[in-house]
Formats: sequence, C-alpha cells, structure tokens
Amino acid sequence: MNNDTICAISTNIGEAAIAIIRLTGSNSIKICNKIFKTKNKKKISIQDARKIIMGKIIENNKTIDEVLITIFKAPKSYTGENTVEISCHGSLFIQNKIIQLLIKNGCRLAKNGEFTLRAFLNRKLDLSQAEGVAELISSDNEKAHELAIKQMRGGFSNEIKILRKQFIKFASLIELELDFSQEDVEFANRKDLLDLINKINIKVNQLLDSFKLGNVIKNGIPISIVGAPNAGKSTLLNTILHEERAIVSNIKGTTRDTIEEKIIIKGFKMRFIDTAGLRETNDTIEKIGISKTYKKMTESAFILYLIDKTDLDIISIEKELERITDGMKNQSEIIILANKHDLNNQNLELADVDNIKIINISAQNGEGINQLLDLIIKKIESWQNINYDITMINQRHFESLINTLNSIKDIQNGFKKNISSEFISLDIKRCLDYLGEITGEITNENLLDSIFKDFCIGK
Amino acid sequence: MNNDTICAISTNIGEAAIAIIRLTGSNSIKICNKIFKTKNKKKISIQDARKIIMGKIIENNKTIDEVLITIFKAPKSYTGENTVEISCHGSLFIQNKIIQLLIKNGCRLAKNGEFTLRAFLNRKLDLSQAEGVAELISSDNEKAHELAIKQMRGGFSNEIKILRKQFIKFASLIELELDFSQEDVEFANRKDLLDLINKINIKVNQLLDSFKLGNVIKNGIPISIVGAPNAGKSTLLNTILHEERAIVSNIKGTTRDTIEEKIIIKGFKMRFIDTAGLRETNDTIEKIGISKTYKKMTESAFILYLIDKTDLDIISIEKELERITDGMKNQSEIIILANKHDLNNQNLELADVDNIKIINISAQNGEGINQLLDLIIKKIESWQNINYDITMINQRHFESLINTLNSIKDIQNGFKKNISSEFISLDIKRCLDYLGEITGEITNENLLDSIFKDFCIGK
Repeated sequence: MNNDTICAISTNIGEAAIAIIRLTGSNSIKICNKIFKTKNKKKISIQDARKIIMGKIIENNKTIDEVLITIFKAPKSYTGENTVEISCHGSLFIQNKIIQLLIKNGCRLAKNGEFTLRAFLNRKLDLSQAEGVAELISSDNEKAHELAIKQMRGGFSNEIKILRKQFIKFASLIELELDFSQEDVEFANRKDLLDLINKINIKVNQLLDSFKLGNVIKNGIPISIVGAPNAGKSTLLNTILHEERAIVSNIKGTTRDTIEEKIIIKGFKMRFIDTAGLRETNDTIEKIGISKTYKKMTESAFILYLIDKTDLDIISIEKELERITDGMKNQSEIIILANKHDLNNQNLELADVDNIKIINISAQNGEGINQLLDLIIKKIESWQNINYDITMINQRHFESLINTLNSIKDIQNGFKKNISSEFISLDIKRCLDYLGEITGEITNENLLDSIFKDFCIGK
Repeated sequence: MNNDTICAISTNIGEAAIAIIRLTGSNSIKICNKIFKTKNKKKISIQDARKIIMGKIIENNKTIDEVLITIFKAPKSYTGENTVEISCHGSLFIQNKIIQLLIKNGCRLAKNGEFTLRAFLNRKLDLSQAEGVAELISSDNEKAHELAIKQMRGGFSNEIKILRKQFIKFASLIELELDFSQEDVEFANRKDLLDLINKINIKVNQLLDSFKLGNVIKNGIPISIVGAPNAGKSTLLNTILHEERAIVSNIKGTTRDTIEEKIIIKGFKMRFIDTAGLRETNDTIEKIGISKTYKKMTESAFILYLIDKTDLDIISIEKELERITDGMKNQSEIIILANKHDLNNQNLELADVDNIKIINISAQNGEGINQLLDLIIKKIESWQNINYDITMINQRHFESLINTLNSIKDIQNGFKKNISSEFISLDIKRCLDYLGEITGEITNENLLDSIFKDFCIGK
C-alpha cells in the first residue's frame, strides 16, 4: 500500500473567509512541523491530537498566514492515518502557497477521492460506504441526501456481508467434499445451502427493485405531461413551477421539443417533462416531437394525461389512452387531468379507465393542482414504503447485483441438474466475488480507480 | 451593542469535501446543542473549548450529517464572543440545511464582515487590522499578501496610536488653559507641542507616500508599452506573457484600443498596457486610441518606449521623447527599448537621454527581455526600500491621512498667526478625529457599514 503523505485543499476552491487544507499519511505531522510554528515555538506532536493549535505558516522567516491546526491520530482519523487539518484565511494566494510549501516539504498532491480511498484501504469504511460519501456530497435534495446518509453509515452492505459470510462457510464445506470426493461424503447440507441461496436471491432482488427507486430519487422522478395540442400542458407546467418557463400560446403545436423542469416538492426532486401535443401531423419537426413524447412516456414514472374539457372528443381520447396504457405495460402511473374545469364543471365519463385516477383541474387558475401533487407524493411514498436502509442508488452495485443474480441461477440450475460439486463450487465462487464487489471485500485496482476518479479532490 | 447570535457558511460556497459553518454570539453553544448530538448524547459546553467534538446534526430524529464541532470560548475567539465552528460534508444541501436549522433555532444570518466587525467591537482587532483581514483574503500576489499580513498584525496603526495618545495629552492641557484663560497660564509647552505636530506631520507624509506604493503593489504596477506604429509593441507584450494575447500584424494601427495584461513576476503583480501606436493620424478611432495612450502613460509607473531600429527616424523619436518626458514630470520611469536588435545591432545614439536607460531587445526572439524585467524589479524594490511595516494600501486611510495633513496645516498656521487657543483647540480635535478614524478609535455606524460591506459573508 502506498503510504506517502498527501495534501489537498478540501473546501471549495475560491476566495472566502476560511479554507481547509488536509494532509494525511505517516509524515503529515513531520511535514507540518517544517512550515508551522506555534507562538512559543513548540513542535506539534501526536500528543496534541484533537486540540486546536494556533500558530503561523512560515516560509523563509516570512509569515504566510496565521492558522489553526488540528491533528487526528491514527487510527482515529477519517483516513485511519495520521492526519492534519490546516484552517487558513481563504485567499487563493494563501491556499496555493500552503499547498506549494507542503509539496516542497515532501507531500504529494492528493488525487480525486484519495482521502476516502485511504479510509477504505485502512478499513475505516467499506466500499459501499465510501461511495456513500461521494453520493452525500453530490446529493442536492432531501430524499437523495437521506439515501446517501444511510449508505455512508452502512445501509444494506452489512446484510450482504452477513449473507456472504454464511455462504463462504458453505463454499468451504463443498471444497472439503471435493477433497474427499472418492468417499462420497456430504459436509454441506444441501437443503440449508439452497435455503441460504434463496435468502440471498430474495435479498438481491429486493435490492434490485430498490435500485430503480433509489435512482429515481437521486436523479429526479420523471413525470411526463402529455395530451392533445392546446390541452394546456405548458400552462400546467408553468402553474406547477409558479413561473413562466415554457412558451405558452394558443397556436396548436407550440411546444415542439420537450421541455424539462426540475422542482423539489416535499423533499422529492421531480422532473416535469412538457411534451409535444399528441396529434396527427404532417409537420416533420412536430412528428419528431411527438415520437419523442412517446419515448419520454416510456421513461416516466408518472404520465399526466391532459384532457381539454372544453374540446372533448371522447372517442379519440379513449383510443389515445388505450394506446398509452398498452405501450406502458403498467410500468408508469397514469393520471388523467380533466383540464379547464373552470370552464366546464361536468365530470368526465370514460370507458376502461377503472385503474386510472381522474382529477379535475384548471391549469389556468391552479384548481386541483395541490390534489394532483399530493397524489403523486402519496404514490411515491407507497413504493415499497421506501425503506431507506436497503434503497440502492449506485450503478456499480446494480451491475454487481445483476451478476450475482445470474450466478445464483447457475447454482440453482446446477443443483437441479445434479451436476458435479466441482462446477457448483466454481459458480459459488463467482457469486461470492460479485457479492464481495459491492462491499469491497473483493476488489482490484481498476475497480477502485473507476470508483474514486469521480470524487472531488480533497475528499 | 447588538449581541444576537449570527451564523454563516465561512468557506467558499459550492460542492466540496468539507465546508465550515460558523456561529458567534452569546447563544451559540445553546443553539448548537439544539441541533447537535454527540455519540453518547452529552451536551457540548464551554468546557469542551478547543477540542474536536464528533457528532451528528439532527432534525426530527433524522441525521442531516456527521460533523466535527469546535467551541471557542469568549474572549479567546476570533470575534471575542463564544464561537462554534461546524465542519460538515460539503454538499450544498447539507450546508443550506444546517444554516436553516441554525436560523430556525435562533440564529440570524450574518451580514458581510459581521464576524470581523464583532472582533473590532470587542477590541480583538483595531479597524486598520480588521481591514487588513479583508485585504489579506483578497490579495492575489505575494507582495500584496505581505502588505496585508503586516496590516492585519498591527503594521503602522500602532505608531499612529502612540502619536495620537501624546497629542491627546497636549489637547487636554490646552483645554485646561482655556479654563484658566483669564490668568494667561500656559500648561502646554508650545515648543514640545510643535515638535510633536512635526513628528505627526512627517509620519503622515511617510504614510501618504507609502500609499502610492502600497496601492500599486496591490492593484498591479502599471507599465505602458508605447512607441510608433509597428515598432513591435504587441509582439513585446506577447513575448512577456509567453502567449498570444494581443493581435499582432504588420499593418500599422492594429492595436486601436489599449490592451492590458496582468502577470506576476517575482511576486509583484505587473499590469502591462499595450497602447495604440503614437503617430499623426486622420482615423477618428485611432486618434481616440492615441489620446488614451497619453492618458495611460500619465498613470503608469513605467513607460517602455519602443523604437524600431530597422526604421529609425531619430528626429521624430527625440521630439516624441521630449514630449513624453515633459508630460510625465518625472513621475513615471521611462525605459527606452531599442527593438529589432537582431536585425540591426548598432547602438542607438540619442540626444538628451542622460537619465533614461536604453536596452537593446528583440521582442521577436526574446533577447534582452530578462534584462528589462530585472531592471523593472530593481527599480520597484528601490522605491523607499519598501518598508512593509508602514506601507498602506487602503483608500479610506489615504483620505483620513489627507484630512489629518490639512488639519495639521491649520494648527501650524494658527500658531504662526498666534490665534486664540480656543480655535487651535478645535483644529487639534479635528486632527485627533481624523487620526482616530484610521485605527478605529473614532468611529460611527456609517463608517463601519461602509468598511464591512465589502467583506465576504462568513468573515
């Protein structure tokens, strides 16, 4: 393990009141002593850990800055190594100067995420927790933040670790059988093993389900606004956003491209997508817009189907709805919005919409909008009752889980076909590797590189 | 004095590994206890001062972040009040959330510079030192940084304080004389008083001289590059900058407006100003450019007068030089650059240039450029041998000093004309006020507002 001492500016780069520079590594205190002097010229040492020490950064007897220093003693630091934090005045000149001085005196500039990488290598965090740190820093809404906090604090990876440990026991028993293969003994109870595999299977499937939810929470819940031209889609979007974002006009076909707006409602980030109106058209550009609308719908968690109550064509609405529901295969939640209720307060009668909620609204004056938003929130909250402990948000975990699932199938098929323990043992090993990738019990340099390259410097 | 508890994000706003949030005021610890829980649920208190405390920021039993907290106990803090620093993960969501929580629990968002204002009001810093903090944070080059560090650590304001104190003694003696005016006594020794006034006068003049230097160091030393069209001015600028910034061509009159480039050489920030070529022209825009050139010259510390040695017109060069030297009244340093020395290596013979240094250069191949830069640095360093302890950089101080100087003249004239002590006493009071403004011993709300409004928030 590389154990040189690294340094970085850990606060956001720019002019500010304060900036924090961090060093970690076995020489961090030694290097600091070369550029830092306390008032009474005492050297700082491990004995000063976790106390604020005032002093000056000095270069050639010139004061570069008056700073506060804090020492964190290994292993009780973020990285698990001796760490020093320098709190300096936030001028860019000072920040750069101190970094230069540290480098001159034996530090190396940290790479992206290298502090957290060291925390992982020193077993302060498992890999999933380390990734949680990055998720936490980049999360920009309450719910994504909650997921990241859970992940950082352990979240689902503990459960996986326990299951994997039990699985390893069976794997070694099967290995043992192989050593005694001529004697036809069975150390690993097959029923117990299959039970465990089932348990893992269930857990992995749960996590996979939760991935969809986690991802949607992190990136925003996609909600398409669709309907015939001039049904009031852009007006609805504007009303929800409380501002004029989409171009609103009563010329049919104004919104040719899709417009997307993000808004955070009750802590959930929602992506409202205003689409081109659905209608037969000869306009080439508009045709592209409409085909985009269908694509957006298939990717949406919710489809708000807007109907203009002052311009009802029940037959074509029912046809359109059928087309949408068929296309969606129930993957998206459809809500019918009977718009312009202020101009026509008769309730809508539609065939075959038993499972679809209809809400009377007026996009123009805001009537029914709160009811709509409440319904959306309620639906989101009902998704597996959002268990933040198991909700996954990481693409890498998703892939490892898919791989795990496939290897579990191989194991199960192997048992069914009664194939030799030698092959089953290989499948189990593969499965163990995939599970271990999630928590970082199994890892390699490429994997670590690809994870930490997206971290910010100084973390 | 307003003693409510204020809070702010003190690091640069943005996504980063770490962010620092600060609170100061009598309730800072109390407010922190409402949102912060240590692992063992202990409350933080003044006894924990200057130790790192780990724990969580909590809202409605939900963890917002895992943070480190440091308490600074009044008066041993930056502001002189009880202060708490929260070191949190640098997500924008977390930073904003913590600020919101603090406000919900009784904090007020700090105004620009309000932490430093409190440090001043609590006598942790005098006004000039407080301003030094802002100068320090905004200084972007080594020399400006050195000036700011000195100012923040006291610099010249101590000397002024001592002189002012002596002056106050005299002022009170003269006041005493007024009480006994009918008895014609003289408590204040006139000779000693005039000696002191002279001392103050010298000091103030020293500081005023140093202001010019300080300002130039802070904002960059202006260096004009002038000369006939096509003498190679833009090429010279590019060679100095090591990059293609100005448009270079051999069509006369290419550079119509002035181009300015900042570059830091040996710690000094220099502002190189490429000007329109000096020549008779009928082009209106170019005429404006040339008149700008003359203006820039009068504002420059150095004028680099470029001569094309392959196209010598000694008569007009000498005329032009005379015009420049007359216009400058020796305020700027003129350096003649005999350019294109690679094409004509004969030395230039000019009349009446005894005090002007001539350097052979080739803007094209870089010959002589280092010699030029060394000369400029040497000249700068010779300016009063740069005494950083007295060098002033602040516009406000400059104005107070000018006012002081004028009131000193009034006092001196008063003595000369032997006017009544009553009037002299008034002039002395005025002079004391102006001196006191510099260190902040005399202050008012408007003055403080105007000083601190330019600070960053969180400082």
